Amino acid sequence: MVGAGQLARMAHQAAVDLGVEMTVLAGSARDSAVLAGAPHVLGSPSKLTDLLAVAKGADVVTFDHELAPNASLVELERSGYRLQPGPHALAFAQDKIAARVALSGAGLPVPPFVPVASVQDVERFSERHGWPLVVKSARGGYDGRGVHVVGDAAEAGRLLARPGPPEREWLAEALVDLEAELTILLARTSGGQVAVYPAVQTIQREGVLRHLLMPAPLPGDVVRRAGDMAVSIAETIGATGIVAVEMFLDTTGQLSVNELALRPHNSGHATIEACETSQFHQHLRAVLGWPLGLTALRSPAATVNVIGEADVVDPAGRLATALAVPGVHVHLYGKTPRAGRKLGHVTALGSDAREALERAGAATALLTRR
Amino acid sequence: MVGAGQLARMAHQAAVDLGVEMTVLAGSARDSAVLAGAPHVLGSPSKLTDLLAVAKGADVVTFDHELAPNASLVELERSGYRLQPGPHALAFAQDKIAARVALSGAGLPVPPFVPVASVQDVERFSERHGWPLVVKSARGGYDGRGVHVVGDAAEAGRLLARPGPPEREWLAEALVDLEAELTILLARTSGGQVAVYPAVQTIQREGVLRHLLMPAPLPGDVVRRAGDMAVSIAETIGATGIVAVEMFLDTTGQLSVNELALRPHNSGHATIEACETSQFHQHLRAVLGWPLGLTALRSPAATVNVIGEADVVDPAGRLATALAVPGVHVHLYGKTPRAGRKLGHVTALGSDAREALERAGAATALLTRR
Repeated sequence: MVGAGQLARMAHQAAVDLGVEMTVLAGSARDSAVLAGAPHVLGSPSKLTDLLAVAKGADVVTFDHELAPNASLVELERSGYRLQPGPHALAFAQDKIAARVALSGAGLPVPPFVPVASVQDVERFSERHGWPLVVKSARGGYDGRGVHVVGDAAEAGRLLARPGPPEREWLAEALVDLEAELTILLARTSGGQVAVYPAVQTIQREGVLRHLLMPAPLPGDVVRRAGDMAVSIAETIGATGIVAVEMFLDTTGQLSVNELALRPHNSGHATIEACETSQFHQHLRAVLGWPLGLTALRSPAATVNVIGEADVVDPAGRLATALAVPGVHVHLYGKTPRAGRKLGHVTALGSDAREALERAGAATALLTRR
Repeated sequence: MVGAGQLARMAHQAAVDLGVEMTVLAGSARDSAVLAGAPHVLGSPSKLTDLLAVAKGADVVTFDHELAPNASLVELERSGYRLQPGPHALAFAQDKIAARVALSGAGLPVPPFVPVASVQDVERFSERHGWPLVVKSARGGYDGRGVHVVGDAAEAGRLLARPGPPEREWLAEALVDLEAELTILLARTSGGQVAVYPAVQTIQREGVLRHLLMPAPLPGDVVRRAGDMAVSIAETIGATGIVAVEMFLDTTGQLSVNELALRPHNSGHATIEACETSQFHQHLRAVLGWPLGLTALRSPAATVNVIGEADVVDPAGRLATALAVPGVHVHLYGKTPRAGRKLGHVTALGSDAREALERAGAATALLTRR
C-alpha cells in the first residue's frame, strides 16, 4: 500500500484479520500505519525507486492516497506490477479537470466548470455563473484543502497569485445551491463485481468533513439515483477497490458529482461497526480480486471526526472520560495532537443516525475539549 | 501483555483502535501478535527477568495465557507493577484444584472432585462416582488438553504414570451427564463495574472447542442462573479484565463450573462482530479501569475454529473460495499450518445462531479441506 496514514492503519487491521501481508510506503516511522505495526518501507510516493521498493514481491499494489505521480504508476505497471486501481483510473482521482471532463463526456452531471489560468478566465466564467464561485486546484486537494469560495475578481486574483508549484492548474466551478452533500461508497473488482454501501450524508464545517450520517437521511429516490450514478462512474473509469463518490444535492433536487477517491475514504469509517463488511476489509478483497463482502447496514450510525481544537488536548488522555458515553467506538490514529489535525474518529450506533450522532458528538467533545 | 498468541494479536488490533500502546511478551518473532505488528519483548513467561522486561514502563500488566508462575507475578507486583488480573485471582485460573476448592467453599456448584496422587486415590473416588470418570492435571491444560476420560483403574494408572513434571498434580472428577456446555463471558474492573456478555454454547469435538453459538440456544432460566453464577465467581475471586466461566449443564438441568480463564477467551470471538463491544476492547477497558462498553447482542452469531486437518492446507490460500460464502468474517492468525493447530476462526451472523453456524461451517470447510 502506497501511503501509511490512518487509512493504511485501518487497512492494516483488516489485513491482520485476513492474514494478508501488507507492506506500506511510509514517509516516517511515526506514520499512523507504522505505529500500528504495519511492515513498512520508508520513502516518498513521488520517487519511483521508493514505489518500486514497496511494491517488490507484492501480488497487488494499492493506495491510501493519490500522491504518487501518475507517470510513476504507469512505470510501475510497465515493470510488471499489478496496480489496483490502475493508473488510468487513478488519474480521475488525481486530476479534477480530467475527472470533470470524463464524467460530463459520459453524460454524468457535474457542476458547471472551466479550467482557468488567469483572473480573466475566472471573470469570464462569472459572467455566466455569477459570484460567488468556487476556485480549486486540480490536484492535491483533499478534505476541502485547495477549495476556495471567492466573492469577486479581486479575491480570485489574490488566490491565483499565491505561491505554489508552477505547474499548478486551477478550475472555476459554479457554486451549487446546496441542500446536502452525500457520498456513495462502493467496491469494484477487476472482474466487475460491484457492491454498494448505504449512502452517507456528510456535514462539513470550515471545509473539513466533521460528521457523517449512515444511512443518509435523504429521500429514497435521491439515494437510488446517487447509487446508480456512482456505479456508472466506477464502470466508466474502470475503478477497482473502494470508490468514494462525493456528490452535491442542490435545492432543486439535482445531483452532481463533486470529487472521486479511489481508496478507503473518511466518509466510510462507519462501515467498520455499522455494515456487514468494513470498507477496509472490502478494499483488500476488491483489489485482491476476491469475492466482495455484504454491504448491508446492520444499524444506523454516525461518525464524528476527532480534530485537534485550538486549545489542543491529547484525546488519548481523555479516553476514560469519553468511553463513559454508551455505545461509542473510538478510533485514535496515534498522531501527535495539533490544532486542525485529524486525530481519530468516533462512531456510534443508534436507533437512527441522528441519535447516533448525539452520542458520537458527545464523546468527541469529551476527547477534544478542556 | 504477557503472551503473544492469537488473543494478544486480536488485543493488539483493539489497542490500535484505542491508540493504546501495548507491548507483548513473545516466545518468538513468529508469534501471532508479533506478526500483526505488536511491539514485543522476546522472552519466556517463566523467567522473572523477562516479565520485568515487558512490564517496564507499563501502567498495567495483563495476560493472554496463564503460564507465568504465580510466584513471579507476586514478585512483579511487589516491584510496583499493577497486574490486572492480580496474582491472587489468577491463581484460580492457573490451578484447577485451588479453583474448585474456592468455588465449592463459596457455595458455587462444581462437579464432585478430589485431588489424586495415585491409582488408589482414583479407585477410591470411583467407588462413590463410578467409571468412567475424568482425570485432569491441575495446571497447564487448555483447549481440553490435560483432560482425560478414563474407563477403569488400569487406564487411570497408565495416565498417572505418564512422564511429566514431578510437581504435577492431578484431580479426579465425576463425569457429568452432559446436556450442553456453555461459557459466560464477562468483564470486571478493579472498581467493581461488571458487564456480562450473552451466553455462548460451546460444542467440542475430540476435546477441542470446535464451534460456538451466541446466544446459547438454551432455556432463559438456565442462562440467567449461569450469568448470576459467573458474576458471583468473578466477585468471589476478585477477577479483573475479561473472565470466561466454562460451565456444564447436566441432563437434570443443574449447572456446574468447569474451568475459569481470566483473559479474552476463544469462546468470545463472536463478540467482535456480534456485540456492541468486542471482548478485546473490553479487556483493555477493564484492565485500564476505564468505563466498560455495552455488551448487547447486535445479531445472533456462530464461530467455528479453523483447525489444521490431517491433510493440511494453508487456509490463507483458500480465502478467495471461502469468502464467497455470504456474511462470513474470517480471522486468520498467521500461524504455520499444521494438523490440529488452531489457525484462525470464522464468525458468521444470521437470523439465528444455527443459520449463522451453517455459514461459518461452510466457510471453514472451504478453508481447511482439499
